Amino acid sequence: MQSTFRSVAIVGKYMDTAALQQMQSDLTRLAHHLLAKGLHVCVEANTAAYVEQEGFEQASLEQIGSKADLVIVMGGDGTMLSVGRALRETGVPLIGINRGRLGFLTDLQTDQMLDEIDEILQGHFQLESRMLLHSVVTRAGSQVLPVVALNDVVIKSAFRLIELEVHVDGQFVSRQRSDGLILTTPTGTTAYGLSAGGPIMHPDLEAISIVPISPHTLSYRPITVPADSVIEVIVVSAADAQMSYDGQGQFPLAAGDHVRIARAEQSIRLVHPQDYCYFDMLRNKLNWG
Amino acid sequence: MQSTFRSVAIVGKYMDTAALQQMQSDLTRLAHHLLAKGLHVCVEANTAAYVEQEGFEQASLEQIGSKADLVIVMGGDGTMLSVGRALRETGVPLIGINRGRLGFLTDLQTDQMLDEIDEILQGHFQLESRMLLHSVVTRAGSQVLPVVALNDVVIKSAFRLIELEVHVDGQFVSRQRSDGLILTTPTGTTAYGLSAGGPIMHPDLEAISIVPISPHTLSYRPITVPADSVIEVIVVSAADAQMSYDGQGQFPLAAGDHVRIARAEQSIRLVHPQDYCYFDMLRNKLNWG
Amino acid sequence: MQSTFRSVAIVGKYMDTAALQQMQSDLTRLAHHLLAKGLHVCVEANTAAYVEQEGFEQASLEQIGSKADLVIVMGGDGTMLSVGRALRETGVPLIGINRGRLGFLTDLQTDQMLDEIDEILQGHFQLESRMLLHSVVTRAGSQVLPVVALNDVVIKSAFRLIELEVHVDGQFVSRQRSDGLILTTPTGTTAYGLSAGGPIMHPDLEAISIVPISPHTLSYRPITVPADSVIEVIVVSAADAQMSYDGQGQFPLAAGDHVRIARAEQSIRLVHPQDYCYFDMLRNKLNWG
Amino acid sequence: MQSTFRSVAIVGKYMDTAALQQMQSDLTRLAHHLLAKGLHVCVEANTAAYVEQEGFEQASLEQIGSKADLVIVMGGDGTMLSVGRALRETGVPLIGINRGRLGFLTDLQTDQMLDEIDEILQGHFQLESRMLLHSVVTRAGSQVLPVVALNDVVIKSAFRLIELEVHVDGQFVSRQRSDGLILTTPTGTTAYGLSAGGPIMHPDLEAISIVPISPHTLSYRPITVPADSVIEVIVVSAADAQMSYDGQGQFPLAAGDHVRIARAEQSIRLVHPQDYCYFDMLRNKLNWG
Repeated sequence: MQSTFRSVAIVGKYMDTAALQQMQSDLTRLAHHLLAKGLHVCVEANTAAYVEQEGFEQASLEQIGSKADLVIVMGGDGTMLSVGRALRETGVPLIGINRGRLGFLTDLQTDQMLDEIDEILQGHFQLESRMLLHSVVTRAGSQVLPVVALNDVVIKSAFRLIELEVHVDGQFVSRQRSDGLILTTPTGTTAYGLSAGGPIMHPDLEAISIVPISPHTLSYRPITVPADSVIEVIVVSAADAQMSYDGQGQFPLAAGDHVRIARAEQSIRLVHPQDYCYFDMLRNKLNWG
Repeated sequence: MQSTFRSVAIVGKYMDTAALQQMQSDLTRLAHHLLAKGLHVCVEANTAAYVEQEGFEQASLEQIGSKADLVIVMGGDGTMLSVGRALRETGVPLIGINRGRLGFLTDLQTDQMLDEIDEILQGHFQLESRMLLHSVVTRAGSQVLPVVALNDVVIKSAFRLIELEVHVDGQFVSRQRSDGLILTTPTGTTAYGLSAGGPIMHPDLEAISIVPISPHTLSYRPITVPADSVIEVIVVSAADAQMSYDGQGQFPLAAGDHVRIARAEQSIRLVHPQDYCYFDMLRNKLNWG
Repeated sequence: MQSTFRSVAIVGKYMDTAALQQMQSDLTRLAHHLLAKGLHVCVEANTAAYVEQEGFEQASLEQIGSKADLVIVMGGDGTMLSVGRALRETGVPLIGINRGRLGFLTDLQTDQMLDEIDEILQGHFQLESRMLLHSVVTRAGSQVLPVVALNDVVIKSAFRLIELEVHVDGQFVSRQRSDGLILTTPTGTTAYGLSAGGPIMHPDLEAISIVPISPHTLSYRPITVPADSVIEVIVVSAADAQMSYDGQGQFPLAAGDHVRIARAEQSIRLVHPQDYCYFDMLRNKLNWG
Repeated sequence: MQSTFRSVAIVGKYMDTAALQQMQSDLTRLAHHLLAKGLHVCVEANTAAYVEQEGFEQASLEQIGSKADLVIVMGGDGTMLSVGRALRETGVPLIGINRGRLGFLTDLQTDQMLDEIDEILQGHFQLESRMLLHSVVTRAGSQVLPVVALNDVVIKSAFRLIELEVHVDGQFVSRQRSDGLILTTPTGTTAYGLSAGGPIMHPDLEAISIVPISPHTLSYRPITVPADSVIEVIVVSAADAQMSYDGQGQFPLAAGDHVRIARAEQSIRLVHPQDYCYFDMLRNKLNWG
């Protein structure tokens, strides 16, 4: 049977040398297996040093998108987020393998990975699209700090109440004091948004949720708006205010900054096993029943 | 200037005689004003007895939809819900006038109603569509208890924990003990769903939210799914279980009942003043800032 | 070594014949073990039919308190609540054995019960006191529906919003619409109160928590008051209002009813293994970490 | 009639020159009024420059406690917290006057202050005690960063999840990832603790509440323990961890730091008008009904 994918890339937890060392034998097993099937195999540059196997190509994370038609990520949700953001322009689909417990974004476990990857290579898989957020700050007339997020953009003060004004599609929504705001995709609703009291949104929903963090006014609750909304957050008072995306970055914000958050042009594509079900994953991760 | 609407219907809080009596002068003022403009005016049968004015037609709530191209409801959110459900097949748009505080669905107050209605009659208005839910119970092979809701369908036990199983599009979601579940449209998210900890959803969002009421498992949280999802709730244990819609009805449910909730074919159309803004209403109703 | 306890009573899940049948061999093992140690053994009347052993005395639940100086309950938290309430006048301490998973109130599991009971008989145990609530309704000048609760007293409407007025020590606290109110002891804070969003209270805390269920006003939050407070709940509007205690009873309430809740004169005494720790139990039951 | 208090101190919002300037006429009115009654009046040093009146003594905040038997604070809750902490060793009671809306701790408004103060001077008042927390960090064998708080001690990470281990009276409670923890007195439960989802505790309750901020594990909920508990929080991972008290200070914490929080030896005494009621204040501040 012919594989759907001819060229497969492997990316490990590329920024963590200790983790790469621990996954050395799994990375090697995976590369060996794919090469033995006659596939073109490309390994991310940092990861490559931990693959004890010959015959694969090496490429930077940026180049991989144009070389592979499937990217296998070995790592946790954090690595999936990073690789997803890095490859968003290329449209190449990703699948994640986790060494420990399954993640919200990593569907496979190392001990069954070869069988599961074979199934996928034989065309037995689901393909899913996940929306991204694009955020940019207008400060003194310039656009600064452009970021793209798969989970969320967070505007938050370190230690004091922050006052933020929210507008959606040019309409004034609120001016509130809180610890901050989470602007989250459906993917991000099971991450920080959930801890802060936000709703879970199915990934097929085209929506953005605005989740206040410890708001001073108790009736100030999470609001979900359509994905094509343009959200503008104005920093009214900015003691220690900072912005982060997917848990990354600590960009200081100043009073008067306008943060514009909207759906990004690109999306991420995820490959799931044929029998993947979002709700099964949810039950497992949230310890239901 | 010619009016967009030629035939206007008036419906008071039609099931509450005491309320109708209290709104007698406002109903009369409104009817007089519309008739004086040369419009065809139709008054709901129960309401008609409280309109001290001649020249209007009388019709049952069911007939009104085919006679009017705008229905003005004088009452609160509850009356708007009832009239909306009753007229859903006709597509005729509604606008609400409240005697006291504004409601989530009633945009006008009696003291400025004539000017505001004039603006609308001159074509200065917004038209908005609100999705409905349709629910039906499968019991012993028969379909029973079909209802339509603008806010929510609630499955709930009176006094004990109830065990409910939820499926979305045929996929198993959860089997949980709780006081019950709220299945809510975006419109309903500011009603019972909000009290039970659910998110606010903008009415433009095409979504249904599944909100557990006092769930036994603390990680069992509200889940929002796309509006075209088919939700099936199976009553596993049914001590005192009942179903209601928009706060109406107390239909007993039995163990083994399957309640199928999906978007209804019809929608409600709301007329809003030109300067209406959903978020302004929200701020006002939820006492933000 | 001499036992601290000379006379031990055994109570099974006495109102559930099927459960008693299932625990037959465990009950028998326990009775045999205690008798073999030369202790006086008394078995609750319903339970007695399921103990295949000779030499024990039989007594009603009411009589047991005066015959035993330790009561061993085989069952879950619900049985512990019932037995605790029934024996509250006697001051005899209880310990619970659960057949399945440990409960909030049942410390022992059947498979290690004999060793653990021996430790307790040798004086290696902790003794803990748990406060109770007493509730009585004043209706048309009469006092009706007196109940005692170890977990909570719940005033709740079956299907509609209920309006309740709360006073504490004669001071007006609130008049709010909600699904109802939970008045809970520290023991009850891990039961229904927790599902409804209430805090966890350590059992050593002398306090009563007033937890609203799905309140209409979002800033209406759980309030904890000292245990010697007298709480009065006035039923303002009473559609389907009912009162229950520890999940038992469905006493209809009428508009105008005054429900007076205060600490009961008696307390329950619990025996715990020497190494029992409340927080260990909490972590286990709530799946922390 | 003879006054209960012979020597009265006045403290304005002493660290905010702009605010002091705005309250200049109110401060002067108050001082004039007290002096005219023949009382000894002492004014806090920073405040004194804004009192256009002769005949009062000037003293530092530290000295005031030994000079006055009543301290009148003109400012908001923040000023009350500062003055309360500063005077805790002296036992001198405080009362607060707010220029705008009443606070949780400030009972009087400037426009009726003279009449209300007269009532208090004539002995018509309530005296209430509020517990304080004492916190100290053990680091490398030394005790550092001792603080006292009237509202709360907060251990929090600026931008990342922090891992904290909690022990109560030497018993292990939890090891959890979250944004941080709030340790709050009853007084503090209407401050940051409430925003983070904690319960309201009546000030007469002798308790400390441990409130997690956006905990990763959803079943990790606020826990209330008796006021004589010793709480130890161990900083397991400390990215950007900091400690603050009553919203003051940003003391960096390091991994391995042990923060020991317990009831302080001293308490604050508050003077309230005769007709003060905690629940009236609560209803007003939380916009109930």
